[in-house]
Amino acid sequence: MDFELTDSQRRVRDTAREIATSTLLPGYADRERAGRIEPALRRELGGLGLIAPELPSALGGRDSDRVTTGLICEEIGRGDINVAYLQVVGSLVGQILAGHAPELAREWVPRITAGEEIVGIGLTEPHGGSDAGVPRMTAVPDAGCWRLDGVKSLSFAADAAAVVVFARTDPSSGRGKGISAFLVPLDADGVTREDYPDIGTTAVGRGAVHLDGVRIPGSNLIGAEGAGFGPVMQGFDFSRALIGLQCLGAAEQSVDETWEYVSGREAFDRPLSTRQGVAFPLAEQDTYLAAARLLCLETLWRKDTGRPHTAQAAMCKWWAPKAAHEAITACLLLHGQYGYRRELPFDQRMRDVLGLQIGDGTAQIMKLVIARQRVGRALAP
Amino acid sequence: MDFELTDSQRRVRDTAREIATSTLLPGYADRERAGRIEPALRRELGGLGLIAPELPSALGGRDSDRVTTGLICEEIGRGDINVAYLQVVGSLVGQILAGHAPELAREWVPRITAGEEIVGIGLTEPHGGSDAGVPRMTAVPDAGCWRLDGVKSLSFAADAAAVVVFARTDPSSGRGKGISAFLVPLDADGVTREDYPDIGTTAVGRGAVHLDGVRIPGSNLIGAEGAGFGPVMQGFDFSRALIGLQCLGAAEQSVDETWEYVSGREAFDRPLSTRQGVAFPLAEQDTYLAAARLLCLETLWRKDTGRPHTAQAAMCKWWAPKAAHEAITACLLLHGQYGYRRELPFDQRMRDVLGLQIGDGTAQIMKLVIARQRVGRALAP
Amino acid sequence: MDFELTDSQRRVRDTAREIATSTLLPGYADRERAGRIEPALRRELGGLGLIAPELPSALGGRDSDRVTTGLICEEIGRGDINVAYLQVVGSLVGQILAGHAPELAREWVPRITAGEEIVGIGLTEPHGGSDAGVPRMTAVPDAGCWRLDGVKSLSFAADAAAVVVFARTDPSSGRGKGISAFLVPLDADGVTREDYPDIGTTAVGRGAVHLDGVRIPGSNLIGAEGAGFGPVMQGFDFSRALIGLQCLGAAEQSVDETWEYVSGREAFDRPLSTRQGVAFPLAEQDTYLAAARLLCLETLWRKDTGRPHTAQAAMCKWWAPKAAHEAITACLLLHGQYGYRRELPFDQRMRDVLGLQIGDGTAQIMKLVIARQRVGRALAP
Amino acid sequence: MDFELTDSQRRVRDTAREIATSTLLPGYADRERAGRIEPALRRELGGLGLIAPELPSALGGRDSDRVTTGLICEEIGRGDINVAYLQVVGSLVGQILAGHAPELAREWVPRITAGEEIVGIGLTEPHGGSDAGVPRMTAVPDAGCWRLDGVKSLSFAADAAAVVVFARTDPSSGRGKGISAFLVPLDADGVTREDYPDIGTTAVGRGAVHLDGVRIPGSNLIGAEGAGFGPVMQGFDFSRALIGLQCLGAAEQSVDETWEYVSGREAFDRPLSTRQGVAFPLAEQDTYLAAARLLCLETLWRKDTGRPHTAQAAMCKWWAPKAAHEAITACLLLHGQYGYRRELPFDQRMRDVLGLQIGDGTAQIMKLVIARQRVGRALAP
Repeated sequence: MDFELTDSQRRVRDTAREIATSTLLPGYADRERAGRIEPALRRELGGLGLIAPELPSALGGRDSDRVTTGLICEEIGRGDINVAYLQVVGSLVGQILAGHAPELAREWVPRITAGEEIVGIGLTEPHGGSDAGVPRMTAVPDAGCWRLDGVKSLSFAADAAAVVVFARTDPSSGRGKGISAFLVPLDADGVTREDYPDIGTTAVGRGAVHLDGVRIPGSNLIGAEGAGFGPVMQGFDFSRALIGLQCLGAAEQSVDETWEYVSGREAFDRPLSTRQGVAFPLAEQDTYLAAARLLCLETLWRKDTGRPHTAQAAMCKWWAPKAAHEAITACLLLHGQYGYRRELPFDQRMRDVLGLQIGDGTAQIMKLVIARQRVGRALAP
Repeated sequence: MDFELTDSQRRVRDTAREIATSTLLPGYADRERAGRIEPALRRELGGLGLIAPELPSALGGRDSDRVTTGLICEEIGRGDINVAYLQVVGSLVGQILAGHAPELAREWVPRITAGEEIVGIGLTEPHGGSDAGVPRMTAVPDAGCWRLDGVKSLSFAADAAAVVVFARTDPSSGRGKGISAFLVPLDADGVTREDYPDIGTTAVGRGAVHLDGVRIPGSNLIGAEGAGFGPVMQGFDFSRALIGLQCLGAAEQSVDETWEYVSGREAFDRPLSTRQGVAFPLAEQDTYLAAARLLCLETLWRKDTGRPHTAQAAMCKWWAPKAAHEAITACLLLHGQYGYRRELPFDQRMRDVLGLQIGDGTAQIMKLVIARQRVGRALAP
Repeated sequence: MDFELTDSQRRVRDTAREIATSTLLPGYADRERAGRIEPALRRELGGLGLIAPELPSALGGRDSDRVTTGLICEEIGRGDINVAYLQVVGSLVGQILAGHAPELAREWVPRITAGEEIVGIGLTEPHGGSDAGVPRMTAVPDAGCWRLDGVKSLSFAADAAAVVVFARTDPSSGRGKGISAFLVPLDADGVTREDYPDIGTTAVGRGAVHLDGVRIPGSNLIGAEGAGFGPVMQGFDFSRALIGLQCLGAAEQSVDETWEYVSGREAFDRPLSTRQGVAFPLAEQDTYLAAARLLCLETLWRKDTGRPHTAQAAMCKWWAPKAAHEAITACLLLHGQYGYRRELPFDQRMRDVLGLQIGDGTAQIMKLVIARQRVGRALAP
Repeated sequence: MDFELTDSQRRVRDTAREIATSTLLPGYADRERAGRIEPALRRELGGLGLIAPELPSALGGRDSDRVTTGLICEEIGRGDINVAYLQVVGSLVGQILAGHAPELAREWVPRITAGEEIVGIGLTEPHGGSDAGVPRMTAVPDAGCWRLDGVKSLSFAADAAAVVVFARTDPSSGRGKGISAFLVPLDADGVTREDYPDIGTTAVGRGAVHLDGVRIPGSNLIGAEGAGFGPVMQGFDFSRALIGLQCLGAAEQSVDETWEYVSGREAFDRPLSTRQGVAFPLAEQDTYLAAARLLCLETLWRKDTGRPHTAQAAMCKWWAPKAAHEAITACLLLHGQYGYRRELPFDQRMRDVLGLQIGDGTAQIMKLVIARQRVGRALAP
């Protein structure tokens, strides 16, 4: 076993840390107010090789491993957890296209990795929540094209140039069957966008795209017709570990800031850090975050080396955002009335991390996944 | 033992519930945006006998017991937890004046109970946090008056007509000594007000009053010179239980709403409530809230009947707001993406309840209080 | 509301506390080794009016309320949690007989309340666990008698003089139907007894009775034929609150002992109690135990006054034994190596309390009950 | 990063797993009753290279890394957590002797690694608990020898052939000063042994050795006179991670057994594992154990590669045994009444793991260590 980063991993991490400290953290609150991530920032990240570097260099990636991508998410998450979501979506969509639609990949992936464009992923629908197996969106063949109708929820709804959606191509089949994936350019006729009034992650701009008779070329089908969720579900294992790390980054930063605060702040004639009632809860948070971080990194290493990692990814997804939320809450409280002010980032981090407990699969779904891996589908809930 | 409400308690509770449902809950988000509680609403509550009814009728109260006040806080908290803070501050200040300054009480308390005016309480100073024993505010005798200089943090900083402050009258004495209480009208010369940019409870308007050479009549001294925190600390035991109940009200309302939501929302072909992974966490929250509620009510009954209740009040203050925060967080998550929207009240409730975990004494202070009651000051931390 | 005990409740509680301190606590470990409760002790408790005093005086009770019985369980639990189980079973069986079998009640209940005899309750069967609705025990009419065949698990298997069992009288009916209750004297032919090698509560002597063609008089039918679990299920609500209190008694005693220990024990030149890392966890336990206690007492008051209390009783049953177990574990750990010795009672209490988390309904069953009360059977898991 | 085991690590782990399954698990309860580990078993483990293989081959080790030792502890812990303590003590003492007393090492270490002898470590004294810095044991020079007087607590008190003790050689110095380490053969005159009546880990045989004027050769001084705890404290970082892994092994085994049980056990017409209320808590335990395991392995890797690991080791020590205890408790409860029987290993594992939460440093001490690493000794509690 070797827990040391390679030189290359360390270099990329340092690059990410540098921009997180110098640029992302100072603009964290502004980006929330603006409700978006500046395109120039996106391009800067792309230029630094910080978006989906695990993709092949032929597609604009850097041929690196997923552990590297995870380290980027963690560091970026220290500065602005929402910016780190660019990594998650870029890697997820990049992988789907690279793996199942070579033509589309050549066209779109280099623009993703360069930070030129965002391609969103529309898996869920407003009515359906975690139950993605019964989409109402339909795709009907129409003179060499496909005509799509329906609504999808996605992140970056306002800024995305295109979106990967899942639609029913065989309306007669049952749950999870007869579903195909498509890439839909969002400048097409019949597309309207809607913002969701979310309580957090507003810089990520979650919302909906409504497709009303949108026509796309036949070549925008991803994978085989009716291939369903298979491809993307594998990608979700990967992105679940990334989500874990982006949340942990925000929590680690919070805990660092809090150790510093309690070391300097005096009450009852002594620094707060000299009180066990203050220092012990922080020591506990340090422990949970360190452990959850290793769980995420191991999951990425499993993906990198072709090992099964579905249960591990589900562990990352339910626990790391939850542990991060609890750590940040503890940090806010240890700052007392100062932590309760809008000038400090704890409330924003709490709200942002909460969104990542829900998105891409609730804790209940994740525990279901773990149980299925343990005892098989028939014996799981 | 008898856990039944009296007819009178039930009547008052029903009145509070009625206004909570019809008026407070619908305006909860608006009041946050406005950053204040409408004076008309305050007067309506006063007119209904819902502010500090435990005070003597000669002072505008209703001669009721504190259990009644607690029931009001709980019900009002179901509608708008910030409005319930009117009760907390009204009862706390009303009791201090009624008990230690009969003249001032005759002048001010009827206006408090009528909802005509708010009199705030300025115990902490921005630099001091939980450590209120070393105020920097000074009060110096000056030709039959007192001249006050310093800064106090308080709720309702913008709207309060007056504030009870604690200032050093003997600068040479040590921690907790040489401190006197005063009532300071906030229309006096030398008063400036400051808003705190808090993340929640904005309708309560926490902020600071700066007193720069403010002169008040000699008769505005509360209690004896140098009497210190004694009087108000007894009041804090009382208000800690009220704070517990206002938080529990917000949490109970959240859990009710969530049981209803999960009974109606279907996923994977069945209502969410039929899943143990959904229903069991809610059943747990029901349990904690029911237990914490009894703890608060018993504390108020102890106050009513002259029994010691310092440890019990500290239990209410650290646990009930924490349990409420965890319950509301669970409710938000069980609503999935819908819970994450600004249209639903969960985020606002979470932020509001967090403020009440900090204000009026952190969890650490409360556990210190419990330990002192158990083993005595010398053997406690 | 009135949280004060009546004079009569206080008198009974003091009697229970006196015997708990003088007799029960010193013999707690011995009783585990012996694997039984001495009949003389049982009779002493009966003589003092400490077994099922809520039963009518015509049946040997004291016409008291159930809150009184709960207070007894708590105090006895402080001394020996297993002895308190005499109260639980006595009250449960006494109530069933008094309510549904007046003849049998006249014969048996006075001997129960006097501590002369134990009548056990055999609800579950070894194969069935929590799923009591499908008993394999059968009862067949046989010349004016009933012939019973099957196995039941029960407490006091070795010492009980009789047992209330539930057996199928209509083998063709479905879950929960066609079931009747009987009183089976255990000196009948065809009865054999079996001890369970349990890890705790050995003084309670959990085991099985095997009934092989046991014949009992027709008059030993309790209630109507086929009336099923209805009667006893109501009793279970009552006994669940009693179980909560017996566990809380053991935990309260542990916490008291631990405050005393940490006040006296020095490490690093100061008493342990002066460390927040020691005192704060104990303050938290104090809080949970105080709250859980009120939950149990309120449930008993609801029973006493004819109010619905099924959800409340389920809350008591899942939470109070769990909170007690966690409190006792914390106490053991705070005693360090001394807590880990057999001379101290913490390990025995932990094991005993664990048994009461399982027996009479697991936490899962209880949360199911709460959910059903909330959303109705159709929408509950 | 590379989370894969080397071939050599995998081979050793498989050897350990094989003996854990075939020999250790079946004899787990017997070894508790016997109160010792059979010397033949010890020698078998030594012969297989499973005791302190990280020591140099010149001393009977295998020149392997500490990660290997950790994997052994985990696997052995699956079979019998007490047997795994042989590894912990063997590695700790072996390292002290190898590093600070070459002569003694040549004599004793090969017998340790071969399983021929146990050399215990006596750090704490009965009066002192976690506060080892003020030993009462004294060592006085006496004609080229040392004369020792005092009492030490240690594991394997009955079976150890020798013990490493810490004694005051300069009675006038303050806390942590003037202390020297010695190897004391336990067949010397003046040695008496005492068993502690512990509630668990009885096969480890914790007890005391009383040294009354015991004379040992001058060459039995370990390190320099007055060198104090420095050497052993570094070893403790290492052994803390090992203790974590032995506890996790016992918990992992418990969780595996429980998934199997709930998949086979039916209630209410379905396997228990199909209930979310059963499967989700197990999925949570899987997550915590996987994360804690990585934390322990990373700590060992840090030791192997010369990186700082004091904070990490403290995290392992407080959290892994606690997480293991909670997992095993959950497993016991999920087995219902069957889990409560002595035939199943859960109760024994719970008691054993509890001992490891206390021994070698309580959770409080560990959190202190973490805080000191974070903010420095002056700002830590």
